[in-house]
Amino acid sequence: MINIAVAQSGGPTCAINASLVGVFKESLKVPKIDAIFGSINGIEGIIDNHLVDMKSMILTNADIELLRQTPSTVLGSCRYKLPDWREDEEVYKKIVDTFKQRNIGAFFYIGGNDSMDTVNKLSEYVYEQGLDVKIIGIPKTIDNDLCITDHTPGFGSAAKYVATTMHEITRDSIVYSIPSVTIVEIMGRHAGWLTASSAVLHAMGETAPHLVYVPEIKFSLERFLADVRQEMSKHKAVIVAVSEGIEVPEGVQSGVVDNFGHKYLSGIGKYLEEIVRNEIGCKVRSVELNVMQRCSSHVGSKTDIDEAEAIGAAGVRCALEGNTGKVMVFKRVSDTPYTVVIDTAAANEIANNEKPLPRKYINSAGNNIRDFAIDYFMPLIQGDLQLVTEHGIPKHFAIHESVLK
Amino acid sequence: MINIAVAQSGGPTCAINASLVGVFKESLKVPKIDAIFGSINGIEGIIDNHLVDMKSMILTNADIELLRQTPSTVLGSCRYKLPDWREDEEVYKKIVDTFKQRNIGAFFYIGGNDSMDTVNKLSEYVYEQGLDVKIIGIPKTIDNDLCITDHTPGFGSAAKYVATTMHEITRDSIVYSIPSVTIVEIMGRHAGWLTASSAVLHAMGETAPHLVYVPEIKFSLERFLADVRQEMSKHKAVIVAVSEGIEVPEGVQSGVVDNFGHKYLSGIGKYLEEIVRNEIGCKVRSVELNVMQRCSSHVGSKTDIDEAEAIGAAGVRCALEGNTGKVMVFKRVSDTPYTVVIDTAAANEIANNEKPLPRKYINSAGNNIRDFAIDYFMPLIQGDLQLVTEHGIPKHFAIHESVLK
Repeated sequence: MINIAVAQSGGPTCAINASLVGVFKESLKVPKIDAIFGSINGIEGIIDNHLVDMKSMILTNADIELLRQTPSTVLGSCRYKLPDWREDEEVYKKIVDTFKQRNIGAFFYIGGNDSMDTVNKLSEYVYEQGLDVKIIGIPKTIDNDLCITDHTPGFGSAAKYVATTMHEITRDSIVYSIPSVTIVEIMGRHAGWLTASSAVLHAMGETAPHLVYVPEIKFSLERFLADVRQEMSKHKAVIVAVSEGIEVPEGVQSGVVDNFGHKYLSGIGKYLEEIVRNEIGCKVRSVELNVMQRCSSHVGSKTDIDEAEAIGAAGVRCALEGNTGKVMVFKRVSDTPYTVVIDTAAANEIANNEKPLPRKYINSAGNNIRDFAIDYFMPLIQGDLQLVTEHGIPKHFAIHESVLK
Repeated sequence: MINIAVAQSGGPTCAINASLVGVFKESLKVPKIDAIFGSINGIEGIIDNHLVDMKSMILTNADIELLRQTPSTVLGSCRYKLPDWREDEEVYKKIVDTFKQRNIGAFFYIGGNDSMDTVNKLSEYVYEQGLDVKIIGIPKTIDNDLCITDHTPGFGSAAKYVATTMHEITRDSIVYSIPSVTIVEIMGRHAGWLTASSAVLHAMGETAPHLVYVPEIKFSLERFLADVRQEMSKHKAVIVAVSEGIEVPEGVQSGVVDNFGHKYLSGIGKYLEEIVRNEIGCKVRSVELNVMQRCSSHVGSKTDIDEAEAIGAAGVRCALEGNTGKVMVFKRVSDTPYTVVIDTAAANEIANNEKPLPRKYINSAGNNIRDFAIDYFMPLIQGDLQLVTEHGIPKHFAIHESVLK
């Protein structure tokens, strides 16, 4: 008999608890697995031996269903990066102490780039120590920027939120008789996947978003203003999708100073709003989709949540087959009908790398997304969740906040 | 035979097209009503004789269903305030010209405070001219601040969005091991109804929102900071709901200067975020629900949309009974079971007045909402819409943007 441990790391998504459910349900099926421990606040819970017994936390099928539809990370999260174990072994010794004391035979880490670095380093260290603990990574990030995998759990739900909301903002923006510009700021510091996904609206016959700016294309304020003027000559209400991570003059995004020399309090959307107001002088509004784009599980993608659960479960089977230092990945077999299979990749191939939006998805002017790229995004946002509600609002599963302290 | 005209005015909501559907469907039933004209951009369309034939725009029951679930105002909107007709008759003459030329026997104006002022003035003028055109107001506003009516169409859907989203933001905010404050800025320049509605989460066992600030209570920065410190001693992640309209030191909200003497680019949420960062020094984030709170029909309240349609239809019956200068209102018969009837009020009693959140709904400290007030809000957010979707996203009804130009 062995016990297993599972943890969640990095920024919240709508799908990260579904992957936890996948690990949990698959582990329940395995006779040789006894306790299922949840590590509080990612790897920090393993370091500090702060674990919860998930079988005493999740008692019923109804609990499982609620957890599956709950956004964010029920076990808390962290932004902890392990040092190189060849240089600093101290924290690794604590981890190994926990593994031994709790009789952990496998550890599943649900997270993004940084978490896969943890999977990589920890699997190496444990192997060097001759300890039989399988370390498996389960991907997640709304940024969709992990290498090798076709896409990441959490991205589909975020993309569905972005497309649904951009559609509604489009309706909202066109009501008055005067011309206007609406700038929607979307998450993605280094990769434009989520911003690009807003272009699925084109498949619904919408002309919006009229302009799309992603970090993969060098940003020019002059070009931006020319683009906006050009679109204003064609449309009364121009909708612009912009990644938070596009590069603008130094200091603007750092929170230090804006280009007027003042302390700058906001993001790129507010910055471009001011530019348009000053240079074009039309009605302009900026909208930051903020944390809603990563936590709006009320509009989650069924495809995404189902896949997130499936890839968590596959991680358990992968460990039981004797693998370690692996990350579970999706391989897309076809767009239509949409077919994916789950495979594995070496953690060191995924850790610390980023997959940018392909240049071929972006038009030659660098200011919108090509139609054929929509075939990539479209399957990921399909299907609605049948949500359990209370008082008209989707219910959530939560462990008491005192446990998270 | 008469024709009728209908227009939409003020800020968009999720329910304003449902009221249009109510007017349209009820009018179709009436043999003496021939053409149903939609006025483009509110009263401006009447002034400029810019009308569309709605029967040639809405062709099928499927069109009606789509329009019903489409947020914002399909006919465009305006912020036009009529002058006193005793002082300036010119624009009234244009309106009367349109009424006569189009053989309009009744005009339905869907809008908020300002629109009810239009209903009031226009009904007086038309009556003075001896013209038989019935002028009826159909209420709408997410602010819920119209007098006499128990609540306004559009408010329930906005409240459902706010509660659902605050619930998700609560999950999102608690993941890291360090203490944090999240400030959610909610619409409402003069009335705190929508901000207060976030307190329905308390009925779901949530401690969030831990603090609620509305314009009805004089705001004090010192009290605010003391409140936040107090809540931080009890909760790891403190969630604050704040109305955009609370009064803070002069200039902050005017967009002129912040209290550091700099040009201030953002709203109250960002302002309070900076205050907390500077004075308390903890992790802090502000979230502006922005236009999403008024246009997120994907999470609309079925109660709200059904009522919006019903009150539009009732407006047509009211006009046919010979009334003019009236506004349709809801009267609540009971909370449980939730029962409302539709009645009328004189437009001059509703125009230019605002109904604040009652003091009794607010706790004695002035920083949260009392439990019994939840009985008022709860029925308004009940029920989900069965949305028609395309490519996984709710479909919308839209007239070509060239018509709106």
